[in-house]
Amino acid sequence: MSGSITGKNIRISTWGESHGKALGCVIDGFPAGLDISEEDIQKFLDRRKPGTSTATTSRKEDDLVEILSGIFEGKTTGTPISLLVKNTSQRSADYKEIASYYRPGHADYGYDQKYGFRDYRGGGRSSGRETIGRVAAGAICSKLLEIMDIKVCAYTRSIGDVEIDYDKFDEAVRLTTPTAMPDADADKKAMELIEKAREEKDSLGGVVECRITGVPAGIGEPVFDKLDALLSQAIMSIGAVKAVEIGDGINASRIKGSENNDAFENNGSHITKKTNHSGGILGGMSDGSDIVVRAYFKPTPSIASTQETINSNGENITVNIKGRHDPVVVPRAVVVVESMCALTILDLMISNITSTVDPIISFYKNKQK
Amino acid sequence: MSGSITGKNIRISTWGESHGKALGCVIDGFPAGLDISEEDIQKFLDRRKPGTSTATTSRKEDDLVEILSGIFEGKTTGTPISLLVKNTSQRSADYKEIASYYRPGHADYGYDQKYGFRDYRGGGRSSGRETIGRVAAGAICSKLLEIMDIKVCAYTRSIGDVEIDYDKFDEAVRLTTPTAMPDADADKKAMELIEKAREEKDSLGGVVECRITGVPAGIGEPVFDKLDALLSQAIMSIGAVKAVEIGDGINASRIKGSENNDAFENNGSHITKKTNHSGGILGGMSDGSDIVVRAYFKPTPSIASTQETINSNGENITVNIKGRHDPVVVPRAVVVVESMCALTILDLMISNITSTVDPIISFYKNKQK
Amino acid sequence: MSGSITGKNIRISTWGESHGKALGCVIDGFPAGLDISEEDIQKFLDRRKPGTSTATTSRKEDDLVEILSGIFEGKTTGTPISLLVKNTSQRSADYKEIASYYRPGHADYGYDQKYGFRDYRGGGRSSGRETIGRVAAGAICSKLLEIMDIKVCAYTRSIGDVEIDYDKFDEAVRLTTPTAMPDADADKKAMELIEKAREEKDSLGGVVECRITGVPAGIGEPVFDKLDALLSQAIMSIGAVKAVEIGDGINASRIKGSENNDAFENNGSHITKKTNHSGGILGGMSDGSDIVVRAYFKPTPSIASTQETINSNGENITVNIKGRHDPVVVPRAVVVVESMCALTILDLMISNITSTVDPIISFYKNKQK
Amino acid sequence: MSGSITGKNIRISTWGESHGKALGCVIDGFPAGLDISEEDIQKFLDRRKPGTSTATTSRKEDDLVEILSGIFEGKTTGTPISLLVKNTSQRSADYKEIASYYRPGHADYGYDQKYGFRDYRGGGRSSGRETIGRVAAGAICSKLLEIMDIKVCAYTRSIGDVEIDYDKFDEAVRLTTPTAMPDADADKKAMELIEKAREEKDSLGGVVECRITGVPAGIGEPVFDKLDALLSQAIMSIGAVKAVEIGDGINASRIKGSENNDAFENNGSHITKKTNHSGGILGGMSDGSDIVVRAYFKPTPSIASTQETINSNGENITVNIKGRHDPVVVPRAVVVVESMCALTILDLMISNITSTVDPIISFYKNKQK
Repeated sequence: MSGSITGKNIRISTWGESHGKALGCVIDGFPAGLDISEEDIQKFLDRRKPGTSTATTSRKEDDLVEILSGIFEGKTTGTPISLLVKNTSQRSADYKEIASYYRPGHADYGYDQKYGFRDYRGGGRSSGRETIGRVAAGAICSKLLEIMDIKVCAYTRSIGDVEIDYDKFDEAVRLTTPTAMPDADADKKAMELIEKAREEKDSLGGVVECRITGVPAGIGEPVFDKLDALLSQAIMSIGAVKAVEIGDGINASRIKGSENNDAFENNGSHITKKTNHSGGILGGMSDGSDIVVRAYFKPTPSIASTQETINSNGENITVNIKGRHDPVVVPRAVVVVESMCALTILDLMISNITSTVDPIISFYKNKQK
Repeated sequence: MSGSITGKNIRISTWGESHGKALGCVIDGFPAGLDISEEDIQKFLDRRKPGTSTATTSRKEDDLVEILSGIFEGKTTGTPISLLVKNTSQRSADYKEIASYYRPGHADYGYDQKYGFRDYRGGGRSSGRETIGRVAAGAICSKLLEIMDIKVCAYTRSIGDVEIDYDKFDEAVRLTTPTAMPDADADKKAMELIEKAREEKDSLGGVVECRITGVPAGIGEPVFDKLDALLSQAIMSIGAVKAVEIGDGINASRIKGSENNDAFENNGSHITKKTNHSGGILGGMSDGSDIVVRAYFKPTPSIASTQETINSNGENITVNIKGRHDPVVVPRAVVVVESMCALTILDLMISNITSTVDPIISFYKNKQK
Repeated sequence: MSGSITGKNIRISTWGESHGKALGCVIDGFPAGLDISEEDIQKFLDRRKPGTSTATTSRKEDDLVEILSGIFEGKTTGTPISLLVKNTSQRSADYKEIASYYRPGHADYGYDQKYGFRDYRGGGRSSGRETIGRVAAGAICSKLLEIMDIKVCAYTRSIGDVEIDYDKFDEAVRLTTPTAMPDADADKKAMELIEKAREEKDSLGGVVECRITGVPAGIGEPVFDKLDALLSQAIMSIGAVKAVEIGDGINASRIKGSENNDAFENNGSHITKKTNHSGGILGGMSDGSDIVVRAYFKPTPSIASTQETINSNGENITVNIKGRHDPVVVPRAVVVVESMCALTILDLMISNITSTVDPIISFYKNKQK
Repeated sequence: MSGSITGKNIRISTWGESHGKALGCVIDGFPAGLDISEEDIQKFLDRRKPGTSTATTSRKEDDLVEILSGIFEGKTTGTPISLLVKNTSQRSADYKEIASYYRPGHADYGYDQKYGFRDYRGGGRSSGRETIGRVAAGAICSKLLEIMDIKVCAYTRSIGDVEIDYDKFDEAVRLTTPTAMPDADADKKAMELIEKAREEKDSLGGVVECRITGVPAGIGEPVFDKLDALLSQAIMSIGAVKAVEIGDGINASRIKGSENNDAFENNGSHITKKTNHSGGILGGMSDGSDIVVRAYFKPTPSIASTQETINSNGENITVNIKGRHDPVVVPRAVVVVESMCALTILDLMISNITSTVDPIISFYKNKQK
C-alpha cells in the first residue's frame, strides 16, 4: 500500500533510494502563480548537506536540484512540480557487507520481513537521503508562507545533554553554527560533545524545536486532521524521531489546570493569550499564538563500536559498522523538521479558506461580474 | 475540508455533538465475516462511561450503542457499519452562558475564528463525547485483532506526579480501578490527588501508556505512513493530548547510540531483541517486540476557579465555569487511546498483506482452482 | 477496502441496507454557514419516493429524514452532518426466497463471491435504497449551488424508445410527470410503454440527462480528477447505469474535427461558444457553456417472468422473482443523477478556489487587518 | 488541489509537460517482488509512439524510459518506482503562436481561466504526452496481471464510420496495423479515411474497446468505488474521451429486462453466464465474464483548416493551427486505455483480497508458525 504520499490539497510524493540513480519528489496541487527558481530550492537543500563540519558525515553530497516540470516562465503553473536530485557520491562497496546482516536500530529487519528482500545499499529507501524530496517541497511551501508573513523557524534545541540558553537565542546564528543551534555558546559545547562521541565510536541524539509565527487562529480540521495530529504524523515520519511534543507537552501532564490554562486577553490592538503553554494549538486548531513543536531524535544507530546482532540466516553475530556516518543527525534534520511543518501548515491553511460558505460564494460572485 | 474520517483500508467517519440528538460513527471497509454484537461494542463504551467514581464527572451518560447497518445474522457484511449512541443526559442550560465567552484551554475561540460561530452546548463537536464513535469502532477492530492473538492494552501510567510501579503491574486491575491504573496502590494515591484537585477547583493531567503485543515485524508503510507516524496522528488527534512518545522516546534523545540500540538475537526459537528501547518500532515498521506508545494529557481545562478570558465582543472578563467536569480526563481516555491504537494497527496490518506479489498471486491462483 | 465514501473537500459516507434499521449518510467537510432544514432535504427525497404512480413500485416508503448532527440554529456548522432515514416498510418475507439463488442482472452473485455471504433482504447494500444517502447529501449541495446561481437540472430523456421532444421541453413539467420527463406528451407515451411492460412481466431502461448551468470556466483538476472523469465515476456508481456521455459523446466519435469543434466567440458582453458539442467540458475543465451529461440505465433486472439461473449450490434452476419492483428505475433515478452531479460540481468548485496563490494570499492578508 | 494522482493501494502520480525537460510518473505502493525491466516498460511506450505511419503525427518521439528508483536487482522493492522519459523532439517555435489565442476544442481557455496563465508549448500539461506516465505504469501492472492469467486487451473498434468486423477479429493483428485494429480489412479502409481527412485538413474520432479476461467474480467495491465507476473515471480521464460504456451500455437503455438479463448457468465445470450483455459487471462488481468497456474519442481538435476563435484579449479572430498533429488519436490511445484498465483492475483486485477476515487471519497465523 502506498505510503510515500502526504498532504490533502498539496500532495507530495517522494521517491528514491540512497544509492539509486536519483531521488526526488512530485508536488501535486501546488497553487499557480508563485515565483520559484532552482536557487530557492537549493538554499533549503544546502542546509541538509553534509560534509561542512565535523558534526556531520564526511561524505560529499552536492545534491543539486533540477526542476523537471510544473514551473513555466519562473512561476508555478498549478500542475505537478517534479524535482530531481541525482546521486553522485555513492560508495556502494561500503554497504555490501551490511546486506548480510541486520543493523541494530535500523529498518533492515523490518524491510526484509515486509518485502522479502531489500535494497541494502546505504539503507535504500530508509536512508536519511529520502528526506531530500521533503526538503525540496518544503522550500516551495515556505516561500508562499513567507509572502503571507508566516515564518517557520526550526533549530537545534539540544544535543545529548547540551541545551540552548534562550537568553542567548539568535535566530540568524542557527544558519551559521555546525549544530544549527541558535546559541553560539551551546553550539561550541555541543561540538565538543560530538567530537567526544565520534572518538568513542558512539553517537548522540537531540531535540529540534520549530516555532511557527503569524498563523491566524482556526487552522486545523476538527477530530482526525487536527493541526497537532497532522504535525505529529509529519514529524514522527522523519527517521529517528521518537517523540513529538506541542507547547508544554510532556510537562503539561504534570501540572494543574490553573497552571496550564492560558488566559485570553484583548491587549488593546488584538486578541492574544497571556501565556502560551498550549504551544499555539487548542482543540486541534491554531489559537493565534506561536506554534511550538518539538521533535525528539534518537542517537544515530550506525556506530563504529562492536555490536551484537543476527545475520540474514538468523545466526547471532557481532558487527562493526563501517562507512561514513553522522555522529548525530540533528543538525541536518533541522531543515527537514522545518520543511514538514511548512508543508503541514500550508496545506491546512488552504483547507481553511473554504471552511465557511462566504468566501466560496464571494469567489464565484466575483467571477460572474 | 473533511477532517472527521481516518484510516485507509478501514475508514472511520465519526459524527455528532455533545448536546445534539446523537453521536456515532460509520466504519467503511471492515472485512466481512467477523462475529460482532452490540454487547461487544457496549463493553468498550462502558469503559469511557463517566459517573462511576469521583475520578470522573457526575454526569450520567448511558451511551447505549445501536447497530444500524453492516451486520447481518451477527456478522460483519463488508459494507458500512453504522453505529449510533443517543444523547440522553444533556443539560444544555449549564452551557448557555459559555456561548458568550471563550473558555481558556478550550477550542471555543478557534471554532469561532474558523467557522464564524459554534455549537457551544457542551463544547459541541470538540467535546470529549466525540470519542464515542472512536471507541465503538475500536471495539470492533480489537475483536479481530484478538483473534490474531494481538493484544492492545492501554492503562493510566500517571496522574499528576503519581506514577504506577511496574513491579505492582497487574493488567486486570486496570479495568477495576477508578483511575484505570494497573497498580492498586498508585490508584489509591492518585484518587487522593484527584480529590484534592477537585476541592481546589482545579484539575490534573496524566499519561496513558499503550502496549501492543503480538504484532509481527514489518507492519507500517515507509516514509509518511510509518507505523509510528500514524500512531502519532491517531493519538494526538485525541483532545487534550500534548505529546506522543514511542519506546524510550524523549529519553532516547539524551543517551548514546551504544545505549539506545537494541541488539537483535536469535534466542533459539525465534528472533527477538535483547532490549526494547525502540518501543517495537524501527524505521517506521514494527520490529517484532512489544509496541509501546505513550500519550501525555494536559489537565482538564474546565475548572471551577476564577479565570481571566475575553467574551465574544473581545472584552476582557473573568469567568467561573459551571457544569459537571472531569477533574482529570485520563481514566476515561484510556479506552480511547486503546481504540485509536487498535484502528491504526489493524489498518496497517491489512495494508501489509499485499506488500509483496506472492500473496496476491496465491489468492487468485487459489480462486481459479 | 472502503468504497462508500466519495468527494475530496466535502466527503460523503453513505451507509445502510434495504431492510436494515435505517439508511443514511455523513457529510464531512461541508462549509459552515448554510441555512438548511429537514424540509430542504425532504423535498429531494420525495422526488425519489415510490408509490406515486404506476411507473414505480407500489411499495410505500415514507423516507423521512432526520438531521442528527452538524446543523446548529438552522445552519451548517462545518462539522459532520449526519442524516438518517428509518426503514419502515420492509416486507422481508418477500425476499427470503432469493436468499437461495442468484437473481440474473443483480449483484447477488458478486456479493457472495466477494464476501462469502450477503444480506439478501431486498438486495441489502446493493438495493436502490442505498441512494437515499446520496440524495440527502445532494439536497444540501444543491442549496449552496443555487445561491451561486448554478442550476443542476436532471430529467428523463427517454424510456425504452420513447424520447422527449426538445421543442416541447418544459423544465417545470419534469417535477409533475410520473416519468420525470419535461415533455408531457412523451410522458404519456412512455407511461403506456411502461404499463405494457408491466403487463408483460417485463421492464424497461432509459436515459437521464442532466444540464448544469452557470458553472464558470476552469472547474475540474487536470489529469485524473477531470470534471468529466469525476462526473463519470459519480454517475456510473449509480446502480443500473451502463454508460455515461458528455455533450455529443458517442456521436462525437463519428464526426469530423471541423464539425465537432466549438468556436469560441466574444458576443459583445462575454466569452461563449457558438455551439456546445463539447457538453461544456474541454480538457477536463468546464468551458463556460452548459454542462450536459447523460446516464444510460439498463432495464430493471427484477422481472416477474420466468428466468434461468443457478441457486447457491450451483444448480441450474428457473425462477419467478416476486416482490414489488419498479418496471423502470429511470423516473426515480433522476434525482439521484442530479444529486451526484451537484456533489461533484460543488466539490470541484471548492477545490478550484485555491488553484492560484492570489486568493490564498488575499484571504490571509485580510485576516491580518 | 491535487489531481494527477490516482489509485488506492497502488497510487500513480504522473507529471510533466509536452515541451518541458521530461515527463514521468511515480508508482507508490506497488507490491515487492515483481521482475521488471526497462524493456518491459518500453514495449508499452513504443505502442503509443508516433511517426510509424501516416495515421499518426510525423513528429519523432523516441520516448525512452529510465527507471530511477524502486527496482533493485531486477525486482520491484515495494517502494516508489520513479520512471522518467526525456523530451527530445520539441519544436516549441511551432507553438509560440498559440500562446496568443484559444484553440477550439482544446483546454487552453480552461487553463487560463483556472490558473491565470498556461504553459502553452504543445498544450503543456494537457498534451497527449501526459499519458506517457500512465502507459509506463500500465506496463508494470499488466505484467503482474499476466502472471495471474488476466489479460487486458484493447484495440481500435472504429474510426469515423469504419468499424471492425468481429468475424475477422485477430488479436495479434492489432499490434501490427497502423490503426491498432484487429481486422486487417477494416484497417485498410480506416487508413484511406484518415488519408482523406488529412488531405481535407480535417480529423477523425473513433472507439477503443478493451476486453479483460480472467477476472474472478467479486472485484469492485460497493457504492462509489464500483468497478465500472472507477473504470469510467480512469477512461474518461484520458483526453478526448467523451463517453464510456460497459457491455451493451447505451443499447441496454433501449431493450427490455428479459432481453438484457444474462442467465447464470453451471456448465458442468464452472459457473458462467449464457450471455454477456452486462459486460462482465453487475452491481459494480465483476461477474466472472469478460469485462468489456468502450471509450468514445472525439476527433482531434487540432486541425489545419481555418477556424473561428478568440485571442487572449477576447477579440474574435480566425486561425489556422500549424504543427504536426495526429489526424486521429485513437490508434495511439489504445495502449493508454489498456493501461488505465490494467491500473484500475489490479488496484481493485488488491483491495478485494482483504474483503473478508479469513485471508487476514490466515496470513498472520502463518507468520506466527
